[in-house]
Amino acid sequence: MSKPSSTDKQATLTEARQRIDSIDQQLQSLISERARWAQQVGRAKGPLKAAVEYYRPEREAQVLRGVIDRNDGPLPNAELVRLFREIMSSCLSQQQPLKIGFLGPEGTFSEQAVRKQFGHAAYGLPLGSIEEVFQEVAAGNADFGVVPVENSGQGMIQMTLDMFLVSKATICGEVELRVHQNLMSLSGELKDVKRVYSHPQSLQQCQAWLRVNLPNAERIPVSSNAEAARMARLAPESAAIAGDAAARVYGLKIVAGPIEDRSDNTTRFLVIGRSIFPRSGNDRTSLLVSVRDKPGALYDVLKPLAEHGISMNRIESRPAHTGKWQYAFFIDISGHVDDEALQAALDEMKPAAADVRVLGSYPVALP
Amino acid sequence: MSKPSSTDKQATLTEARQRIDSIDQQLQSLISERARWAQQVGRAKGPLKAAVEYYRPEREAQVLRGVIDRNDGPLPNAELVRLFREIMSSCLSQQQPLKIGFLGPEGTFSEQAVRKQFGHAAYGLPLGSIEEVFQEVAAGNADFGVVPVENSGQGMIQMTLDMFLVSKATICGEVELRVHQNLMSLSGELKDVKRVYSHPQSLQQCQAWLRVNLPNAERIPVSSNAEAARMARLAPESAAIAGDAAARVYGLKIVAGPIEDRSDNTTRFLVIGRSIFPRSGNDRTSLLVSVRDKPGALYDVLKPLAEHGISMNRIESRPAHTGKWQYAFFIDISGHVDDEALQAALDEMKPAAADVRVLGSYPVALP
Repeated sequence: MSKPSSTDKQATLTEARQRIDSIDQQLQSLISERARWAQQVGRAKGPLKAAVEYYRPEREAQVLRGVIDRNDGPLPNAELVRLFREIMSSCLSQQQPLKIGFLGPEGTFSEQAVRKQFGHAAYGLPLGSIEEVFQEVAAGNADFGVVPVENSGQGMIQMTLDMFLVSKATICGEVELRVHQNLMSLSGELKDVKRVYSHPQSLQQCQAWLRVNLPNAERIPVSSNAEAARMARLAPESAAIAGDAAARVYGLKIVAGPIEDRSDNTTRFLVIGRSIFPRSGNDRTSLLVSVRDKPGALYDVLKPLAEHGISMNRIESRPAHTGKWQYAFFIDISGHVDDEALQAALDEMKPAAADVRVLGSYPVALP
Repeated sequence: MSKPSSTDKQATLTEARQRIDSIDQQLQSLISERARWAQQVGRAKGPLKAAVEYYRPEREAQVLRGVIDRNDGPLPNAELVRLFREIMSSCLSQQQPLKIGFLGPEGTFSEQAVRKQFGHAAYGLPLGSIEEVFQEVAAGNADFGVVPVENSGQGMIQMTLDMFLVSKATICGEVELRVHQNLMSLSGELKDVKRVYSHPQSLQQCQAWLRVNLPNAERIPVSSNAEAARMARLAPESAAIAGDAAARVYGLKIVAGPIEDRSDNTTRFLVIGRSIFPRSGNDRTSLLVSVRDKPGALYDVLKPLAEHGISMNRIESRPAHTGKWQYAFFIDISGHVDDEALQAALDEMKPAAADVRVLGSYPVALP
């Protein structure tokens, strides 16, 4: 193939830029039109006060699934979803931006989850504890809260589960952040590594790998994985555990990765609110089930789910704190509480359980 | 006017949602088409290695000015500009995301400036000092750096200016973040305020106002203005100084505002790089002029600018550290170094100055 001449190149550049200019004009008029229709939706709903009354997570999930279904590149699904979230975030914020409480400070994973779900036109409300997030949502000071509930390396986050035992919060959504850990250093050679820097959580997520591969290396906890990569760049005998982006950013070579002990290293967050939203078409339901302290009680409770063909995604038991019942179970199942099969199963569970509470039905996490 | 019936409302909602669905499909195909044309631009430029070779700040500025010129609502200019920055950021990151060094940690004003200029598809590289940002850009580890250069409450940031004396960095852009400070508390009453929480910089920006209006209140520096608002919410006799968003977010009442001593409280950042980009049509040029130590030297240097009708936006003198020349002047003027008038003025300045260095010509900051 012959190399394009510089005149050809210039012609291509000029054409591409003209096309992009014309595309941008169309994009702009469509975005503005979308914002006007979003206003119409607001008006049709009458004079409501809070942004939360305009927000429909099930509708957003449908829009974003449509985006993924239609996508044939070149942008990856996650990038297109991100752009549409931002467009929806801007359109929604015309009424009044949503206020989202999260476990602060700013710049943490929790804030990333907030931005992934609600975009940058929402107000983030950094709070001091998971408990405070629940309280602010209950008091109406935040429209929604985002709390970590599961880290695949370390299991469920008990504090969040326990809050549902004492709070009336509902679950309105879930957000997943996927993180792969890598060992990285200047030389990229395992034999050079005398010290490993990382955030304490990341060190913990990789402890089995470290025990086998670097039994004698010193492990030094630092405030963030970015800080770890920064330290590793300053000393050839140091390495950092961090995401692969950090290696590109800090000019380090990947020694090994992924090295997390669980290969699917995802942090899962719940969006908490004060109501349960309608079906999106691909939903999950979270139940809080208190069980009487007698043999076979849990089995009896789970039987209706199996019989109605409802798949169970997670189950976690917690001491129920009530004295009366020994255990509470957090159970995630597929489907929406408005589904007939799920309704029937719930009805059949009730006699076997001391209490069955639907914490929420919400769209399954998008990429 | 009669109230719309619930059937009318439902019809409007259904229509609005259908329109939005159709708009979203068109938006998606346009965004994908835009990304394909951006790939074409990349290919036409040949097999280049770094993302920086695809990035054209002058072109982005033109696109965004076009967006503002065409905007007739309902979204505000800043929101539309934000969305287009994100779309451009996604399209550009197909080649390879830009790496942007900034004064860390994450979550600071400097990171806000990075995101405002480069969107969320760029890699942010949080660094430990302004000096390190210059070093990483010089070494090619970062494509660009973002450094604070001016806070209207406190003047020029000397560290940044001094780095240009010892570094070959160029200026490729400027970013402005506008912040108004407000005093806020639970009661909203000035007489209740015994303590004022805020970030040290914000306390300093409002010191004249505090001296006059709250001479006896204790001033308590905290790590961020969000933290200040959080503290103020816990105690009725406390107030916070923060942006008005914090009052909405934390449920506080504005006692007074804006209360910053300079009414135009803007933090200005420079985008530093390794080259000077072509004209965008509305540009600023930064000069570093060393002047011989003799009477009237500065006057002689500035005369050609005046004679060629070039307006000067800023001037700041710094000790030149060379021993030989007493002063260096940082001068910002309107126009691009490729403009004829500016070329002529520069030629005429040279005999009067010991050295004239063009630090950069770059698009004037967008909203």
